[in-house]
Amino acid sequence: MWIYEKKLQYPVRVSKCDPQMAKYLMEQYGGADGELAAALRYLNQRYTIPEEVIGVLTDIGTEEFAHLEMIATMIYKLTKDATPEQLRAVGLGDHYASHDKALFYSNASGVPWTAAYIQAKGDPMADLYEDIAAEEKARATYQWLIDLTDDVDLQDGLKFLREREVIHSLRFRECVEILKADMSTKKIF
Amino acid sequence: MWIYEKKLQYPVRVSKCDPQMAKYLMEQYGGADGELAAALRYLNQRYTIPEEVIGVLTDIGTEEFAHLEMIATMIYKLTKDATPEQLRAVGLGDHYASHDKALFYSNASGVPWTAAYIQAKGDPMADLYEDIAAEEKARATYQWLIDLTDDVDLQDGLKFLREREVIHSLRFRECVEILKADMSTKKIF
Amino acid sequence: MWIYEKKLQYPVRVSKCDPQMAKYLMEQYGGADGELAAALRYLNQRYTIPEEVIGVLTDIGTEEFAHLEMIATMIYKLTKDATPEQLRAVGLGDHYASHDKALFYSNASGVPWTAAYIQAKGDPMADLYEDIAAEEKARATYQWLIDLTDDVDLQDGLKFLREREVIHSLRFRECVEILKADMSTKKIF
Amino acid sequence: MWIYEKKLQYPVRVSKCDPQMAKYLMEQYGGADGELAAALRYLNQRYTIPEEVIGVLTDIGTEEFAHLEMIATMIYKLTKDATPEQLRAVGLGDHYASHDKALFYSNASGVPWTAAYIQAKGDPMADLYEDIAAEEKARATYQWLIDLTDDVDLQDGLKFLREREVIHSLRFRECVEILKADMSTKKIF
Amino acid sequence: MWIYEKKLQYPVRVSKCDPQMAKYLMEQYGGADGELAAALRYLNQRYTIPEEVIGVLTDIGTEEFAHLEMIATMIYKLTKDATPEQLRAVGLGDHYASHDKALFYSNASGVPWTAAYIQAKGDPMADLYEDIAAEEKARATYQWLIDLTDDVDLQDGLKFLREREVIHSLRFRECVEILKADMSTKKIF
Amino acid sequence: MWIYEKKLQYPVRVSKCDPQMAKYLMEQYGGADGELAAALRYLNQRYTIPEEVIGVLTDIGTEEFAHLEMIATMIYKLTKDATPEQLRAVGLGDHYASHDKALFYSNASGVPWTAAYIQAKGDPMADLYEDIAAEEKARATYQWLIDLTDDVDLQDGLKFLREREVIHSLRFRECVEILKADMSTKKIF
Repeated sequence: MWIYEKKLQYPVRVSKCDPQMAKYLMEQYGGADGELAAALRYLNQRYTIPEEVIGVLTDIGTEEFAHLEMIATMIYKLTKDATPEQLRAVGLGDHYASHDKALFYSNASGVPWTAAYIQAKGDPMADLYEDIAAEEKARATYQWLIDLTDDVDLQDGLKFLREREVIHSLRFRECVEILKADMSTKKIF
Repeated sequence: MWIYEKKLQYPVRVSKCDPQMAKYLMEQYGGADGELAAALRYLNQRYTIPEEVIGVLTDIGTEEFAHLEMIATMIYKLTKDATPEQLRAVGLGDHYASHDKALFYSNASGVPWTAAYIQAKGDPMADLYEDIAAEEKARATYQWLIDLTDDVDLQDGLKFLREREVIHSLRFRECVEILKADMSTKKIF
Repeated sequence: MWIYEKKLQYPVRVSKCDPQMAKYLMEQYGGADGELAAALRYLNQRYTIPEEVIGVLTDIGTEEFAHLEMIATMIYKLTKDATPEQLRAVGLGDHYASHDKALFYSNASGVPWTAAYIQAKGDPMADLYEDIAAEEKARATYQWLIDLTDDVDLQDGLKFLREREVIHSLRFRECVEILKADMSTKKIF
Repeated sequence: MWIYEKKLQYPVRVSKCDPQMAKYLMEQYGGADGELAAALRYLNQRYTIPEEVIGVLTDIGTEEFAHLEMIATMIYKLTKDATPEQLRAVGLGDHYASHDKALFYSNASGVPWTAAYIQAKGDPMADLYEDIAAEEKARATYQWLIDLTDDVDLQDGLKFLREREVIHSLRFRECVEILKADMSTKKIF
Repeated sequence: MWIYEKKLQYPVRVSKCDPQMAKYLMEQYGGADGELAAALRYLNQRYTIPEEVIGVLTDIGTEEFAHLEMIATMIYKLTKDATPEQLRAVGLGDHYASHDKALFYSNASGVPWTAAYIQAKGDPMADLYEDIAAEEKARATYQWLIDLTDDVDLQDGLKFLREREVIHSLRFRECVEILKADMSTKKIF
Repeated sequence: MWIYEKKLQYPVRVSKCDPQMAKYLMEQYGGADGELAAALRYLNQRYTIPEEVIGVLTDIGTEEFAHLEMIATMIYKLTKDATPEQLRAVGLGDHYASHDKALFYSNASGVPWTAAYIQAKGDPMADLYEDIAAEEKARATYQWLIDLTDDVDLQDGLKFLREREVIHSLRFRECVEILKADMSTKKIF
């Protein structure tokens, strides 16, 4: 089970009302390689992955929920002072017509999140490469998002998140090595 | 952010290996009215709901993740000793072909979870009735699941979960009243 | 069965060619809380709902088809004189590339309608709260749409439709009370 | 707008409780080539099709709703006396876990209906061939369904529906000829 | 099996960087009536169609992959020199946030391709009318795309593709006649 | 463009009519990690991947279409002599109701293929890890399929396909090294 602590993992600041960037950030909220996908992917794999790496999946999966909350906060801050007219101007009129300024788990094009984005195979190597790929893809998305804004406050948060994906990718690679060593040991004896 | 505590909200016990019930329980794991849908729905609405009820959404949303973990544990326990042959016999051969015994966020028919199941309108009354309806629907699913098994240990866990949905429904109804009172007060002055 | 009567439930007028508003109105044509979703939801629940409220579901479900036709007429009138260039300018170039000016059951973002938006549980209370929530959500969408236009003729039609949703919500709440009274009576004897 | 008349287009009879056939009939309720798809496809195309054939689309679209009601009645009659155990035995345990005996717009595999099944192009010939193809596909489905049952009462209703699809296919082919003649006339003068 | 030949079926030229048209062309890459849908539809039907027409399905299906490659090349050429800012300006910022300039099988609105767009019924007439309709719909899309651009080089490629669809439609109509003749012959003897 | 050669990459044999296995094999036809997903994923990434590895993507993507054809042939051979009754018995009655014995791009649960299963990020490392993960997941699926059958002829074909995935995974890992070396060289000068 989880306990909620009322603080963000890392402070979220934005320099201005920028609904256009909010739209793009939805990619990391409800998109294919976003934080929701990441959190759900890792936590779901815990039941059939070898015991040695369950802890890593729990840790990273839980952290991804904290990232999801950071993205939500960014989107909220970037849109809270926007008028309907401003939302229309940046292509969020469709979002507004359905959700007003509420958030929703859809990607930047408005496509609702689907579990088809993620996978769990019950094969440890397949699952870990799924996870490494996920982190590499999330890293790329953060790069494209950083490229899309000149708001240094927002960039600061996005860079923190990008950096975490790099670290997660390394941790999953370590898990691969741990399991390989483990399999090799088992084969010997 | 969330902190993981390595225990279940309520103990999960099953009396026997029963992959058939595991299949049906997937409805509450990755189905339309399941625990994933519930958790994501409430936590997402927090940014535009009036401040008085944010805490309720956070509390219940976080608890639903604990429920999701209970369901995952039930499914795992019901299938962990099953042979591929037993999985085939109960209509889980398709799941096995893709996922082996790994869990996945699909419903009992194998349809992947989609955010189209949930909604956020930015209108407090609409959002709260969405939530009340969600709890009523989850309650119904738990009832149908209880009807489908004679495993008293499993029923015990399912009855706990059903009961929690009833309590959540009541809490969301209270939120409606709080907001109505609040709106009425504001109108007067 | 149904008989078609060649008239609209309420007259539809628009003051000008406004493809931008047409795009937003698609939310009520093929969106999550739109008239298609409403009509299909209610008519589908009729087979397992208690007899006392079947008539209400039939009436409202049939009326929602009339609303769907009103929305279709609005979208048609708002776009019929638009050039491809005007459609492009308001973000309907993608719609035009696939559909020309034909209507389609997708939401304002272009996502096709899916039955995942609606539900039927076979539990009368769950089904009726699903319906109340649906009406509250549709009411909210009409509000956001009214906010997005200054065309008073269009607003007139949208206000009529919003008002109907309010009335439907009340009728479904009455159904809840009827069924509660009925269940309570049955328990006594 | 539509007016509901409380009778079926053609009487629906079934000889026995047969949830297995009910499962297969869902293909014509919420499947790709089912009655819902048909009704929605034709009624939606009315706004951009040439005036000469709007009436055909309205007539056939409205009739398809009557067919949808017939299919719903068949499914209801085939399942109303089934126990949960009987539903499990025929692979409807997953449906029961979510919907009890309520109907739902999913196909025989449990996949929710999506508007991606249908199309509207704004080009009269493309739209009419879409419609002819739809009728041919529905005819085929009715054939496979008739092959799957030996219930002569049920077959009687299914044969009526299959026959209607054949007639609709012919009517859409006539529309093609009408429009071709019309286009040819217009070219001459 | 297939052998790749490193050339395009027909030369692809574009006069200018035009990410707006690239966005619209995605309709024929990953949209409902696009080249991917066409290729996959025909090749899949080969196993149950009468032997006389298998060759036509293989030929046309294989050609559609060549068309898919032409569309991909068009999209690539229209976007390769665009800055992120230019992509934003034409409503491709959402695509960029997820995919940078990589292609993806989604339609012009960003909705991922789904097999729900196509069908195979095992009934030769139904399958062939599905195919005729597909060609008519693709023809219409090419017309709308040609209408959306004034780039004569791009129009040249699009006109070639439109023309091919017309020819394919005729070939599928011939297949209908061949099978009708065949069925009639078989009935006589 | 591609040229069709009328032979299979590797001979496909099956020992018996086995519609149950056919159902499971659909996972590799229209499932998340199947051959369709593989072919489309690699061919789509060619436009933004560095030139050094385009050839590998073309080769492997083209080969995956040959694998898709092998899987199609297996499914066809396993079902061609089955009666509707036999299809019902193994849970393919739903497939039959819609498709008769025609193939379709859905997974073993009947869920239509969606491009949401695959990704292209425009970042070479992210794309190549996506591809490595895809091969590892496909390898796992082939293992689960081999475990589900005792037909040695079918196993022979599946083992060939599994082996190819292992080889593809190695080739994509080599591509990673090539690009790393290349990036490192570029950085030096």
